[in-house]
Amino acid sequence: MLTIKRLDIQDARVLIAGAREKAEVIGVPMCIAITDEGGNLIAFERMDGGKVTSSIIAIDKSYTASGAKKATHEYGVASQPGSPAYGIGSAIGGRLMVVGGGLPVIVEGEVVGGIGVSSGTPDQDRAVAQAGIDAFLATL
Amino acid sequence: MLTIKRLDIQDARVLIAGAREKAEVIGVPMCIAITDEGGNLIAFERMDGGKVTSSIIAIDKSYTASGAKKATHEYGVASQPGSPAYGIGSAIGGRLMVVGGGLPVIVEGEVVGGIGVSSGTPDQDRAVAQAGIDAFLATL
Amino acid sequence: MLTIKRLDIQDARVLIAGAREKAEVIGVPMCIAITDEGGNLIAFERMDGGKVTSSIIAIDKSYTASGAKKATHEYGVASQPGSPAYGIGSAIGGRLMVVGGGLPVIVEGEVVGGIGVSSGTPDQDRAVAQAGIDAFLATL
Amino acid sequence: MLTIKRLDIQDARVLIAGAREKAEVIGVPMCIAITDEGGNLIAFERMDGGKVTSSIIAIDKSYTASGAKKATHEYGVASQPGSPAYGIGSAIGGRLMVVGGGLPVIVEGEVVGGIGVSSGTPDQDRAVAQAGIDAFLATL
Repeated sequence: MLTIKRLDIQDARVLIAGAREKAEVIGVPMCIAITDEGGNLIAFERMDGGKVTSSIIAIDKSYTASGAKKATHEYGVASQPGSPAYGIGSAIGGRLMVVGGGLPVIVEGEVVGGIGVSSGTPDQDRAVAQAGIDAFLATL
Repeated sequence: MLTIKRLDIQDARVLIAGAREKAEVIGVPMCIAITDEGGNLIAFERMDGGKVTSSIIAIDKSYTASGAKKATHEYGVASQPGSPAYGIGSAIGGRLMVVGGGLPVIVEGEVVGGIGVSSGTPDQDRAVAQAGIDAFLATL
Repeated sequence: MLTIKRLDIQDARVLIAGAREKAEVIGVPMCIAITDEGGNLIAFERMDGGKVTSSIIAIDKSYTASGAKKATHEYGVASQPGSPAYGIGSAIGGRLMVVGGGLPVIVEGEVVGGIGVSSGTPDQDRAVAQAGIDAFLATL
Repeated sequence: MLTIKRLDIQDARVLIAGAREKAEVIGVPMCIAITDEGGNLIAFERMDGGKVTSSIIAIDKSYTASGAKKATHEYGVASQPGSPAYGIGSAIGGRLMVVGGGLPVIVEGEVVGGIGVSSGTPDQDRAVAQAGIDAFLATL
């Protein structure tokens, strides 16, 4: 038997609040998704004005980051034409996201979940996701 | 009527054991899938620590390699931008994998099944898949 | 943060071996799938002669049992015409299985994973799944 | 290693010709699909006037019959409300067909493929599928 640490719903709310605060600062209404370390959704919020398509994209970014234990922008680099992971972005029915904005949440070296953000540019999405993680880690 | 040779469950176990041994040597916990020559799953193991997303990716790499009778990294080359097979990686709902780590299992010139490995770099995945095949061929 | 107990790969092998032994006793080659408590696949075997269609069905029975913390045959009862859960069987793209043969694996009152069996009658599938669980619980 | 017998393309043509002849006799233009014993498509014909939706249904009936080694109308009986396999018809993304018209092709006790027919009533579809099998068995 394995013993796993995993985000709870209170942690998920902290992550979303931290991300939302950053989204408000930069003035981009975002979709924000939190998954557990198995890639399953814990919490989600679409801020007023967030993109409809980004609901699914944010969830899939978070799924990818937690399930693959890797930031989605790293997959973006690794999957460029000519690179070894070229083509990975259409795996799992297209759920494997290679666009920035998905980050694993890591505590004491273990992935305990993920956060995925979508509606802005990939750089904006990534900055907002990071703000969520920063807010969460500050509570530990 | 055709007469087909196909991996049995004991062969599949040998393939997985050979791959797992190599994965342990390089220190990367892997997802390892074995399919028959028709692309249908025979056996699968996710080593402790293997990526959740890689469960599906390993199965689909094996499906591709056995069904298309071709290593997935060969598709990676053939599907680069400007190449004839560009775009093939999103075929079959994204199941057609063009990332290395899927190899057909060939006996006496015939494809009898496939092995798919995922969780490491494509080169690591491919080396682990090859180790599975080497272990299997050594038993013939 | 939550702390979760989860089947490891060695547990999964014990579950499969126990199920396989029962399948051999009743003379029905089975597909046997083990998922973790998040519904993600850990291990799978299709015994020689197991049905091709049952590969996916076994995985989805295990996914349902672990994810929903409920035996699939209980959903079968609850989803009959006129019952409150009528129609649930086509949820999640058809992955929510309401046919017997999927059981949650429960340790100290917590679901730590699931087992799904397919190829026989639903009663045979369920008996084989239970044999896997019995074999596993005997090792604790 | 297993040794499997499987329909070849010439066998598939004989099956389709036998089915088509019966379809002409009863005056119902049909979709007729032939799969191998792994459920993969070998041949398909939509007679002029056959239903568009029946293309997929015929393929899935044949997939079910060959992969599950069972006539689809048997699943129809077994999956009625209150019966043990209730709900199986939405498995595998809905590909598991429980409507008559899919039959396994059996030679010397082994399933070597399947035939699926669609566009008429289930009874018509089944009769046309059986005519294909009769024509094929007469050539052995």
